[in-house]
Amino acid sequence: MSITVNINGEILSQENAKISVFDRGFLFGDSIYDVTYSQSNSFVFLDEHLDRLWNSARLIGMEIQLPREVLVQRILDTAKASGLDEVYARIIVTRGESDLNISTDQYQQNVVIYIKPNIKYDPALYTRGLHLSLVSRARNDRRSLDPNAKSGNYLNNILALQEARNSGADDAVMTNTNGEVAEGTTFNIWMVKDGKVLTPHHDSGLLRGVTRAKVIDICGSNDVVLEERTITTQELIDADEVFITSATKGIMPVYKLDSKIYAENSDQRPITEALRKSYIELIQEHINKGTYSY
Amino acid sequence: MSITVNINGEILSQENAKISVFDRGFLFGDSIYDVTYSQSNSFVFLDEHLDRLWNSARLIGMEIQLPREVLVQRILDTAKASGLDEVYARIIVTRGESDLNISTDQYQQNVVIYIKPNIKYDPALYTRGLHLSLVSRARNDRRSLDPNAKSGNYLNNILALQEARNSGADDAVMTNTNGEVAEGTTFNIWMVKDGKVLTPHHDSGLLRGVTRAKVIDICGSNDVVLEERTITTQELIDADEVFITSATKGIMPVYKLDSKIYAENSDQRPITEALRKSYIELIQEHINKGTYSY
Repeated sequence: MSITVNINGEILSQENAKISVFDRGFLFGDSIYDVTYSQSNSFVFLDEHLDRLWNSARLIGMEIQLPREVLVQRILDTAKASGLDEVYARIIVTRGESDLNISTDQYQQNVVIYIKPNIKYDPALYTRGLHLSLVSRARNDRRSLDPNAKSGNYLNNILALQEARNSGADDAVMTNTNGEVAEGTTFNIWMVKDGKVLTPHHDSGLLRGVTRAKVIDICGSNDVVLEERTITTQELIDADEVFITSATKGIMPVYKLDSKIYAENSDQRPITEALRKSYIELIQEHINKGTYSY
Repeated sequence: MSITVNINGEILSQENAKISVFDRGFLFGDSIYDVTYSQSNSFVFLDEHLDRLWNSARLIGMEIQLPREVLVQRILDTAKASGLDEVYARIIVTRGESDLNISTDQYQQNVVIYIKPNIKYDPALYTRGLHLSLVSRARNDRRSLDPNAKSGNYLNNILALQEARNSGADDAVMTNTNGEVAEGTTFNIWMVKDGKVLTPHHDSGLLRGVTRAKVIDICGSNDVVLEERTITTQELIDADEVFITSATKGIMPVYKLDSKIYAENSDQRPITEALRKSYIELIQEHINKGTYSY
């Protein structure tokens, strides 16, 4: 797979895309990032993703040096250079290159953009769904490192995924250190019970996903009862329907959580399917506006 | 300052030391590291630091691909190439280069060694001491990311240091999420009360420092009463003497914790000074053996 990279404004091939080993992203994971994608040569919810990038920076005490409009132009230019209609875009901003010490003086930040063909998930993941596992690895505590910052410190999630894969599942659901359901490794988690849609409150320690916010809006516009609140692992196990949200996956159903099976086809999860339909329509409307076309 | 870098066996100047932006150390902080130093062209406690590097790898579910003896030879060769008698050495092993996803399949690991002149701390930090602050940023919880793994996920400590510096202190002491004293940003913490030496038990969530282990040994050999146990912040504030340990700093006294002043000269902290003297002797004996000379 060929990936086009933009480092500080310079477009490079995958092979030539290198960074100093003194970059603090490499040394300490001292960086923030966000991920979005395009359809029909137009980026999806780019404003929301960039708002969050700036918020992630704020949460790690960093002020992004690059003007937002310059970053947008670089993303569009790099997507165009890739020659692809449907791209996955990852944007990383590091605190820059420094000596080997951890103090956060002013450095010249590095901005790296990765553009590759958008991920095509196995269609079975939308018809049958995902197999998740409730892992023992707890999500980072908000008092230590707020999961609402998308940062270059991703070992917590990597170890959770490793644990889930070792148990035979596709991916992991993590609890916070109080044992309450928090989020997945790279997605938010949702459940349906007695016609109500539930998702963990942000106080449980999670990323306020862009797709999560859109699904909350969709529930509001369609008179679907939604509760953001603490969810216990037992409630999740006892749910009628379970699904996940992420920018790249959209709304993806969960058919199995450890040994518990919810449903193995779309007909058996009417609310998940209705939300999924509305979400796909919302994206299409957004794309039709073509705000960030290239 | 000139730093000599070794990437996968190749010795490079600081300017030419670059790594792929697809390296997982850069993408996710998916790496482990250790730091040691040399005196009189001989490395100090290198075996202990390499034992810990292998243990850090184990804690993040990674098996180091490079044979230990090859790594040792690279460290010695790079130190020799630097032309320096007293070096600081940082060794990073990353999980390798991958696509942009977080799954931990088998990749070709990257090994980076940094050699620079050993840090010369301001002598006043040994005579007067450090000013520390008890910060609100909690140390990573062991259930999320064990502080006993020295990893490329260092934002937790970076944010603690930032908070301490903003309050006017030199560095930070962190508590765990239960509010018990854990460790500093890059060092272990110790206190003396009524002639007894106390340091947090590893269950409090900390790195089992190489220098920490040596000081525990020194206490044992000198009939100094030592307790590894839970320490409250109030106990730390009420201590008679406070000091820190790290490989590069050795034993360094703390004269002030937030607004509390312990002592501003060496005469007023007899136990810290006695341990410091013994530790310096221990290093000298070790260096005289010249096990890892270059």
